[in-house]
Amino acid sequence: MDTLTTHITVRNFKDESVSDELILQLLQSGIRASTTGNLQWYSVIVTTEPTVRSELNKLHLNQVAAVSAPAILTFCADINRFGKWCTLNKANPGYDNFISFLNASIDALLVAQNFCIAAENSGLGICYLGTVTYNASEIIQLLKLPELVMPVASVAVGWPDISPLPADRLPLRAVVHRDVYKNYGDDEIMEYYQLKEQLESSVQYVRENKKETLAQVFTDIRYKKEDNEKYSGRFVNTLRDQGFNV
Amino acid sequence: MDTLTTHITVRNFKDESVSDELILQLLQSGIRASTTGNLQWYSVIVTTEPTVRSELNKLHLNQVAAVSAPAILTFCADINRFGKWCTLNKANPGYDNFISFLNASIDALLVAQNFCIAAENSGLGICYLGTVTYNASEIIQLLKLPELVMPVASVAVGWPDISPLPADRLPLRAVVHRDVYKNYGDDEIMEYYQLKEQLESSVQYVRENKKETLAQVFTDIRYKKEDNEKYSGRFVNTLRDQGFNV
Repeated sequence: MDTLTTHITVRNFKDESVSDELILQLLQSGIRASTTGNLQWYSVIVTTEPTVRSELNKLHLNQVAAVSAPAILTFCADINRFGKWCTLNKANPGYDNFISFLNASIDALLVAQNFCIAAENSGLGICYLGTVTYNASEIIQLLKLPELVMPVASVAVGWPDISPLPADRLPLRAVVHRDVYKNYGDDEIMEYYQLKEQLESSVQYVRENKKETLAQVFTDIRYKKEDNEKYSGRFVNTLRDQGFNV
Repeated sequence: MDTLTTHITVRNFKDESVSDELILQLLQSGIRASTTGNLQWYSVIVTTEPTVRSELNKLHLNQVAAVSAPAILTFCADINRFGKWCTLNKANPGYDNFISFLNASIDALLVAQNFCIAAENSGLGICYLGTVTYNASEIIQLLKLPELVMPVASVAVGWPDISPLPADRLPLRAVVHRDVYKNYGDDEIMEYYQLKEQLESSVQYVRENKKETLAQVFTDIRYKKEDNEKYSGRFVNTLRDQGFNV
């Protein structure tokens, strides 16, 4: 399982395309992932065409990973296709609701992760673009997603140019609970996050942002309450626009 | 990538435990998955203790996969731990909202799928238990999940007893779109689902359920509109109970 343990996030890709054949082969591994009721409530949009890519890159805030990648794959929760099949088969689909969106999202994310592992196993690099949930409405318009289709993961993929070191992780015992959840004492929290706080990159991050603690960089700058609330409202409205009753 | 392409859903496990060491080793691969801002907004509950398992199995409707598996792993979106760290570091967490739940869920699902692939690579079998989203509230109570923690995936894991054949999948072209989404014509839908409809198991499924079409088995029996609406309401209420403003 070297492919899993050596995962890195690649943000700088070579100016070299990934063949259609390879992408389809990797997606063929992707769609072997588990899927609720074997219904495959997802679609994948593989975008390489320069004009569409230019617009798509903008919606991903022209971040380096998006701009330098030869392909962006947008993994969508998709109940449109299944619903059409139902209607054509004298069946009345009842999937315009939150739990169906959630199940479809789970399906889409398992395929996305399978694809990423297959890609890394072939020497490709990947980067998930978190911007997908922030700009879902604009991505829907650009990628012409019909009702009951929602983007939930975007993956930039290409041949790695610069390969960074693997990122730090919390100690495993910080995220694993035995039988039931054991809530954290203050001491445990301090211990678990100590390594992250002490990293040179974290110390620099705090200094550059003129903050007192690393946590403040996240709460005050990077993932601010008011932004999260704005994006929450936008996402829920977009879900409604796409025909989900939430 | 044989591990990916040969994935099967195992529902019958041998009466043999999986060592703690192995589960932790697989989870160590699991947590290498990409995670938003490297914040790891997830927790994993590994449940094997017979009394808790008996209750947990009930919440998974005593399905064979749950009952026969030596371990069930519940992957949770978890902002509790991160929030505590913020508070201990003079930072004000603003993550009790929908987009944070969504990002945390994405994180949790990528770890879940990494774990499953690592497990299958070690000869174990896995089965996702869709019941996790239906009975989230009861699972929260049993597993003592605090506020801002939500279960999003449950995986039964163990040594395969009966290994079924791989399930059918739609042809790849049915789920992949080039550059933008191309909506489906009726002919395409009929073609893409033809193989599934013609499977002997599907034909039998339609007959046993006394329905006219396979789609009707899903819409009228297996994933009914009224059930989906009930579960949607329950899940959203549970999100609110867990402290998310949605």
